[in-house]
Amino acid sequence: MSHYYRLVVSCPDRVGIVSRVSGFIASQGGSITEANQHSDLETGRFFMRYEIQADSMPLDADGFREAFAPIAEEFAMTWALSDTARRRRVVLMVSRASHCLVDLLYRWTAGELDCEIPCVISNHDDLRALVEWHGIPYHHVPVDPADKAAAFAEVERRVEAAEADAVVLARYMQILPPGLCERYAGRVINIHHSFLPSFAGARPYHQAYERGVKLIGATCHYVTSELDAGPIIEQDIHRVSHCHTPQDLVRFGRDVEKAVLARGLRWHLEDRVLIHGNKTVVFA
Amino acid sequence: MSHYYRLVVSCPDRVGIVSRVSGFIASQGGSITEANQHSDLETGRFFMRYEIQADSMPLDADGFREAFAPIAEEFAMTWALSDTARRRRVVLMVSRASHCLVDLLYRWTAGELDCEIPCVISNHDDLRALVEWHGIPYHHVPVDPADKAAAFAEVERRVEAAEADAVVLARYMQILPPGLCERYAGRVINIHHSFLPSFAGARPYHQAYERGVKLIGATCHYVTSELDAGPIIEQDIHRVSHCHTPQDLVRFGRDVEKAVLARGLRWHLEDRVLIHGNKTVVFA
Amino acid sequence: MSHYYRLVVSCPDRVGIVSRVSGFIASQGGSITEANQHSDLETGRFFMRYEIQADSMPLDADGFREAFAPIAEEFAMTWALSDTARRRRVVLMVSRASHCLVDLLYRWTAGELDCEIPCVISNHDDLRALVEWHGIPYHHVPVDPADKAAAFAEVERRVEAAEADAVVLARYMQILPPGLCERYAGRVINIHHSFLPSFAGARPYHQAYERGVKLIGATCHYVTSELDAGPIIEQDIHRVSHCHTPQDLVRFGRDVEKAVLARGLRWHLEDRVLIHGNKTVVFA
Amino acid sequence: MSHYYRLVVSCPDRVGIVSRVSGFIASQGGSITEANQHSDLETGRFFMRYEIQADSMPLDADGFREAFAPIAEEFAMTWALSDTARRRRVVLMVSRASHCLVDLLYRWTAGELDCEIPCVISNHDDLRALVEWHGIPYHHVPVDPADKAAAFAEVERRVEAAEADAVVLARYMQILPPGLCERYAGRVINIHHSFLPSFAGARPYHQAYERGVKLIGATCHYVTSELDAGPIIEQDIHRVSHCHTPQDLVRFGRDVEKAVLARGLRWHLEDRVLIHGNKTVVFA
Repeated sequence: MSHYYRLVVSCPDRVGIVSRVSGFIASQGGSITEANQHSDLETGRFFMRYEIQADSMPLDADGFREAFAPIAEEFAMTWALSDTARRRRVVLMVSRASHCLVDLLYRWTAGELDCEIPCVISNHDDLRALVEWHGIPYHHVPVDPADKAAAFAEVERRVEAAEADAVVLARYMQILPPGLCERYAGRVINIHHSFLPSFAGARPYHQAYERGVKLIGATCHYVTSELDAGPIIEQDIHRVSHCHTPQDLVRFGRDVEKAVLARGLRWHLEDRVLIHGNKTVVFA
Repeated sequence: MSHYYRLVVSCPDRVGIVSRVSGFIASQGGSITEANQHSDLETGRFFMRYEIQADSMPLDADGFREAFAPIAEEFAMTWALSDTARRRRVVLMVSRASHCLVDLLYRWTAGELDCEIPCVISNHDDLRALVEWHGIPYHHVPVDPADKAAAFAEVERRVEAAEADAVVLARYMQILPPGLCERYAGRVINIHHSFLPSFAGARPYHQAYERGVKLIGATCHYVTSELDAGPIIEQDIHRVSHCHTPQDLVRFGRDVEKAVLARGLRWHLEDRVLIHGNKTVVFA
Repeated sequence: MSHYYRLVVSCPDRVGIVSRVSGFIASQGGSITEANQHSDLETGRFFMRYEIQADSMPLDADGFREAFAPIAEEFAMTWALSDTARRRRVVLMVSRASHCLVDLLYRWTAGELDCEIPCVISNHDDLRALVEWHGIPYHHVPVDPADKAAAFAEVERRVEAAEADAVVLARYMQILPPGLCERYAGRVINIHHSFLPSFAGARPYHQAYERGVKLIGATCHYVTSELDAGPIIEQDIHRVSHCHTPQDLVRFGRDVEKAVLARGLRWHLEDRVLIHGNKTVVFA
Repeated sequence: MSHYYRLVVSCPDRVGIVSRVSGFIASQGGSITEANQHSDLETGRFFMRYEIQADSMPLDADGFREAFAPIAEEFAMTWALSDTARRRRVVLMVSRASHCLVDLLYRWTAGELDCEIPCVISNHDDLRALVEWHGIPYHHVPVDPADKAAAFAEVERRVEAAEADAVVLARYMQILPPGLCERYAGRVINIHHSFLPSFAGARPYHQAYERGVKLIGATCHYVTSELDAGPIIEQDIHRVSHCHTPQDLVRFGRDVEKAVLARGLRWHLEDRVLIHGNKTVVFA
């Protein structure tokens, strides 16, 4: 089976970075199948992502990392090398609404999402049958409003036990505690059911209905300790009119939410999303 | 030349409204070419718009109004009858940016906007040549920050002298005084260069750039005394990415702004926009 | 449980239709919750759809039909009255690709599609487990290329036995025989995986890839005996670029197909689609 | 004034191209502000575009070309180096419809299109005043159906005299002779008023209306001797419904046409469009 290395880099921009990195890869015989670069002129920071056929190089992933480390140091790079032979482990968290979960499980089954799903965690037991039908363990971790700390400690244990590389809040509807957000910074993905920054917080479709907007949206973003304020990965919208009730907005919104979350997660899994302050560079 | 009557009605919803109105029109031999209705189930209010071939009825517009008045009273209607033979008079107000003005003048020339444009008013003199080339008078009314009241008194005199039915703020960039907003309530149309309610106020594209959104937008709305908070007529968006500078956002935004404003104004001129509290019913 | 009558009418346009129909409904105390009309100026044909609270009238559906028949005759109407208390019966037909099926079953479970699904018919056995997990019978009817007639006779028996009101080809990938198309004219809905009339026939995504188009699409249409040429109900598109392989086009296409089919079917079930020659009037 | 070099390359894909090219640029101290690459896995061809700050290198454009030539030869490259200090010369050709012309002239005035417009050529005299108001010469070259050759000989003389780098058919509505197409291959840009390959040829909006499509479109493509079959640069669509007459389709289409043509031309002027057989790679 052919596999790929993905080299993702960000560093202060200066002359010679591409030459140095591509020179190293060429010297190893590496065949680049996809390359993306971005120079942020405002902040002077440079971003790149290379996808390289693993079989074209004599190095395994650790060998690659070792050989590349001096270059990374020279250019003060923040960097990572992933090997598609090792699939990411993604824990899904849900509440009662099933649309995002059904969509992600379909895409996972169809091969659109290249990851393992070690388990699904929910504060309700409603979606157990669906999840277990897909052969995935389901953990019901109720959240007692009087003792949220206990619930989130249990969530964290489950996430760790699953050796999760990423956590997806697929309409989880609970606010994660700051400690958990920070521990998994840049690895917890949320879908918010509004076109942020409009209508942050609760019941965004009802807020949108009240304001009389003509488009509703959804936003996929990394979770930070500040609610609905993390780096945005992807957004999309759906047109609405005076004909539509709040229930229609919720229904249209489901379609936008699942599409936006699926795109965001796929890009994350393909190492296409680089965080830049509170923004993202997305090599889609 | 064939012309049309447009009957626009809103009233408390109850059984028999359509029957009564359409019965009246049919009794006069009126041929309905377009009909729209909407029942707002939440507020119990009913909205309708009928377009009727004027030649199919023996009544002129005033005769129609007189004959219809008892029905309107019976159902406690807010209503208006317009005759397309009388073109609306629309005053355009601009500042320095020309994109919306160029677009509106093109559409007006091409017959897409059925109105008179008695004059253009601006706080700068930059766009005079363009406007006068189209045969439209241009009034330069500078706004002295130290004495805005004088400027807006002059604006109001100009608008009145033009016998304006509507005023379009085609990127006018000045906040109208509350008195003017109220006097022309439901007849002053603004284009705001963001996807409201996100990024109200100044420099929305720069706000959008800072937040790292993946879509920017524009909003056409009726002006009320509360800034950027009036009833929304139309919105649209344009996709952006990390590649784009604030200048790119401004450039994409120009295209969205002019499209959204042109649609909103056209619908207003065709009596397709009915105000419902702080929202709109748009029979597009 | 409140239910609704849906009255759908088309007839030659003339003065007084709306007055007569709405007058009849008002005389019965009928409360209209949604009303749509369309006058096709080119062909002189008139279309309307009324949604009426059933409880607001003393008539049951048959009583309504009986009382309305003279009006229908007077105006030479093609018409139908449906009662939402009686849910339509929709047979789904699939081949091996599951994306449209998964999507329709999710929406059906979520209450977005108001119908019964008496069975799913497939020329392959692959999707049995999925369908049966939803509690729906699955009929495997293989299509022997050497004797298609036998297979389609069996299909027709199954459809009849299911007392189907509509048949949905959710990526069935077989051409129905003309007899079946005609027998269920206006009731067989197909999803074609291109932006018709471009790329009719086989392997449309590969055709699109070869031509180098920048947008791919999908088309939901009624099936007629002429392949991919029936009345179009709905279409949508997805942007593609040189980066995308034929496999990417297939993947994006799946999302467009399922969205377009779901909208088309929902509108059909809500009596929003009126056939007009080889075109449709869609009161969406 | 800072200017940029744009290096555009295509060649058979193999290990070491990026390394060699970026190594050369780095060795000259060149600062890369934008870089795009694409490996077409199907045809094994590689494409790249580099934008380099001219001031960061000691070479002028000719010096760059000379120094780069051996690398180009080594990798069998098709390549070009442009210098933004030399603005392209673009001849616009129009017929009677003004929408694309008005839009292009606005964008040109606003600085969105970085080119000279040495003249506008038309087979009618209608748009002279508009063009001359912008200070651009207008050549009226009538096309006598009985002697098209003479007209196109005159067109070709005008294009040559203008030292045109590109020709834009902004709704010119005449078919250019094959000789002209071949002579300016890859440099004549047309806007076709349909979503090609649907509705090639004449009166596409009427064809679309007859077929009852739910989306109409426009296509910007390079002109080849086969009508409406050249490499597609950009496409877009607009939603339509049964409410819309052919005249409405034409009106909506104008907006799509001008947007699509403007994007295509801008990308062409920025060397973002690389022709690959009958397709394009667009580094947008």
